[in-house]
Amino acid sequence: METTVYVARRIRTLDAERPEAEALAVRRGQLVAVGSRREVLEAAGEGARVVDLGGAVVVPGLVDAHAHLAGLGLSLTVARLEGARSVDEVVRRLANAPATSFQGDWLIGKGWDQNGWPGGGFPGRSELDARFPTTPVYLTRVDHHAAWVNGEALRRAGITRDTPDPAGGRILRDERGEPTGVLVDNAMELVVPRVPPPTDEQLEARLSAALERCAQVGLTGVHDAGMDLRTFRLLQRWDMAGRLPVRVYAMADGQGESRRTYLELGTYGGRMLEMKSVKFLLDGALGSRGAALHTAYSDAPGETGLLLMEPEELAARTEAFMERGFQVCVHAIGDRANTLVVDTLIREAAETKTQGLRHRVEHAQILRPEDIQKLGAAGLVASVQPTHATSDMGWAEARLGAERLKGAYAWKSLKEAGAVLALGSDFPIESPDVLAGLYAARTRQDAAGRPEGGWRPEERLTGEEALEGFTVGPAWASFAEARRGRLKVGMEADFTALSVDPVEDAPRALVDARVVATVVDGREVFRAP
Amino acid sequence: METTVYVARRIRTLDAERPEAEALAVRRGQLVAVGSRREVLEAAGEGARVVDLGGAVVVPGLVDAHAHLAGLGLSLTVARLEGARSVDEVVRRLANAPATSFQGDWLIGKGWDQNGWPGGGFPGRSELDARFPTTPVYLTRVDHHAAWVNGEALRRAGITRDTPDPAGGRILRDERGEPTGVLVDNAMELVVPRVPPPTDEQLEARLSAALERCAQVGLTGVHDAGMDLRTFRLLQRWDMAGRLPVRVYAMADGQGESRRTYLELGTYGGRMLEMKSVKFLLDGALGSRGAALHTAYSDAPGETGLLLMEPEELAARTEAFMERGFQVCVHAIGDRANTLVVDTLIREAAETKTQGLRHRVEHAQILRPEDIQKLGAAGLVASVQPTHATSDMGWAEARLGAERLKGAYAWKSLKEAGAVLALGSDFPIESPDVLAGLYAARTRQDAAGRPEGGWRPEERLTGEEALEGFTVGPAWASFAEARRGRLKVGMEADFTALSVDPVEDAPRALVDARVVATVVDGREVFRAP
Repeated sequence: METTVYVARRIRTLDAERPEAEALAVRRGQLVAVGSRREVLEAAGEGARVVDLGGAVVVPGLVDAHAHLAGLGLSLTVARLEGARSVDEVVRRLANAPATSFQGDWLIGKGWDQNGWPGGGFPGRSELDARFPTTPVYLTRVDHHAAWVNGEALRRAGITRDTPDPAGGRILRDERGEPTGVLVDNAMELVVPRVPPPTDEQLEARLSAALERCAQVGLTGVHDAGMDLRTFRLLQRWDMAGRLPVRVYAMADGQGESRRTYLELGTYGGRMLEMKSVKFLLDGALGSRGAALHTAYSDAPGETGLLLMEPEELAARTEAFMERGFQVCVHAIGDRANTLVVDTLIREAAETKTQGLRHRVEHAQILRPEDIQKLGAAGLVASVQPTHATSDMGWAEARLGAERLKGAYAWKSLKEAGAVLALGSDFPIESPDVLAGLYAARTRQDAAGRPEGGWRPEERLTGEEALEGFTVGPAWASFAEARRGRLKVGMEADFTALSVDPVEDAPRALVDARVVATVVDGREVFRAP
Repeated sequence: METTVYVARRIRTLDAERPEAEALAVRRGQLVAVGSRREVLEAAGEGARVVDLGGAVVVPGLVDAHAHLAGLGLSLTVARLEGARSVDEVVRRLANAPATSFQGDWLIGKGWDQNGWPGGGFPGRSELDARFPTTPVYLTRVDHHAAWVNGEALRRAGITRDTPDPAGGRILRDERGEPTGVLVDNAMELVVPRVPPPTDEQLEARLSAALERCAQVGLTGVHDAGMDLRTFRLLQRWDMAGRLPVRVYAMADGQGESRRTYLELGTYGGRMLEMKSVKFLLDGALGSRGAALHTAYSDAPGETGLLLMEPEELAARTEAFMERGFQVCVHAIGDRANTLVVDTLIREAAETKTQGLRHRVEHAQILRPEDIQKLGAAGLVASVQPTHATSDMGWAEARLGAERLKGAYAWKSLKEAGAVLALGSDFPIESPDVLAGLYAARTRQDAAGRPEGGWRPEERLTGEEALEGFTVGPAWASFAEARRGRLKVGMEADFTALSVDPVEDAPRALVDARVVATVVDGREVFRAP
């Protein structure tokens, strides 16, 4: 049985008994020794293969606790609109989009954000119609909570001035009542079914690209926040064929019809793929003012956002999945949504006696102080995304006002209240770069170091807390804390080698750091050239 | 990659989506198909190896949720006193004990039970001294809560008429105040340290024998209820060498000094061995009147049993281990012990925010109705042993009286209150035969079918509930319900083939049933000749 010894500048184990080491040995996917170079070489015995990682620092395998593989795969293959500074630039990028951007004859794009454009107002169909008069165009906003479409797409979807807003959604309209081409939250669902689905080949190519990207950025695992059935079936086949390079902890998509199928199927626990949770969407995003607030948006009097489900519906769905043994994960951004989800999870877990299922609040973005305390006291998981804070910090106060801001992106407060923090990126909404996540968690600054001292710095995490948030936290949130999240004899051999020490080096170093190697279950799934 | 297809009379999956099947396919330790013979053969492909189990019925791997491997190993190698009908028979068996019964020059025996002897009174040192005047003799009672020793053993331990009873223990004395040779609960600890420990070879031989016996009786896993450090170290080495035939979910021994070491070590999660729980003993057994009751024993006015720990000590230990990420499992037999443990686990889990750690009550044997409700409402695990009920039913009412009996061995009531039932045998106190456990759970009768209709039959489990208690229940109690406990595509290939259907066949059939095969992680660890 082959044993491999990895030697590095430092191994940061997160094991309280031995926090630092110099080497570790791996056999059959298991850590069989962690210690000084000499101890490990001795334990590994004569025939061991030795891999010298040089100046790299090894940490427990980094895991993104909230992300979207299919979305990342799509992003990697369709027109990319992130960072476009104007409508013109969007149109230019669309004109040069690769052939993989099409599903049927629909042109798909992702990642626009009007907040960075001159004026900052929503765009409209007319700007697309000039260049794409007959090709339907479907472009999702950076936060996935709004779509911008052209006239041909509206026509095929049958959306006219007479189409009423669906529950939980809005069709933006001009002063004459005509749809402008922007569809918020549930209104996107009026178009989505008209877009031809990707072919099997497209889907496989996309997921394959997404998984490969995960390994490249140092991720040994991903919690997929709402997996569709088709993706699940495909990953299940790959799991059984031994083809998954990183671990996938899937939340079943709790929206729409697939919900019933998942309830029938029950949970799945495989080698590299697990599905024992479900995700519900409760409100929209802050950027598109879809987040459900208790009182009006500070920059939009009268608007309080949208609840995508009635409380009774949330309770019924939650109960049904809990009874079937699912961990329930609910997307909640606004404080109204968070009040509702915290109360619902606590009440329904007690009803169904599933307090042991470690239910989760996804995003837990804006909370009233009393809800932070409640969430923590119940030991719920707060699945938060550090880069959302640094993406939103330029305009979040305008939306929320100073007082409400105190409970926004409040990682430290959540942790101190007793919540388990599981950190993620929400890719492809943010970049999958986990080093950027560690940086944002420690600094609350953008890559240029603004604002000085960090945005609401009292909510920063220490280097160790941030690292735990991407290792120990996701392990707990996926019931794997005895097997993963730390580097300790017996545990699964999942680890990431970085060019910097994410705990001890200055946070700035993370900005230019790189991933040296990614090892999952003892297998090198990425090695920097 | 080799695929093996198992075909059987019936496969009882416990998967609600497909409760029965005819075949299953295994690849690399994973179930890759479950279905009709035709479906599975097709899915497995051309080169698959086919194993025909004939008339056998396959069930998910049976797991004993409360047992003692080291104790079983000891039982298999020392003088066996179970079923001895008189003191004379005990002495005869001791005289013929195998050489492996000695540790140093001490003669070790196990399993006596005075309840089956003429008169039913406790034995004394004098009966041993005649035959063993210079060899120290140490004999544990069937429930492990009392020891019977001879004069030489008392002498070496320095126990005299002047030795006071230790806290939580009793030295039985005759009318002149002289020790009789029977030591109850903590008083056993006055002698145990004087017995030379087994040699490494002895320990390895014993554990090896115990694990082999587990595989023979159809167990694919065992929850070890209080593992000593030496055993843990040995099993850890075997885990890393791939030498464990069945899965071991260990509770750290929370008594004595090793407690501190375990707290430092933290949890262990390996391939076939996991250690993420700790066990505390809170009271003694009912047989030796050590179980802590709220009011006096019905057959011993004034006696209420013994609490082995003060409530403050229990709280402090519980908190320390919970904070270190351990699931806390507390042995509680009497209703006073159970009130204390239920209150303590609920309170400390809330304090430490570890409601997600699925804390357990071991035995949960005699409970007040209100504590059954509390335990259930909190979703705690009730780790109960069906054969304890059928062993105790002859004299339990004498000890408890009719009223208190209503909350004793109350499996159905616990389940209905919301507790997760994890069934076990407590071997070597009872036999490791899991078929006997399934039979007792369904019938509450002895092997001869007495009493007719079963003892307090309202607490019987159905065939499916009993099977779940040895599969799904232990999986939940060890955080493995997505990977084990049911037979479903993706899950680990742990299963047991039996000569009967434990759900559909009449319970009587279990008495003469046999184990046909035991498969763990896709490997046949036992196959009937």
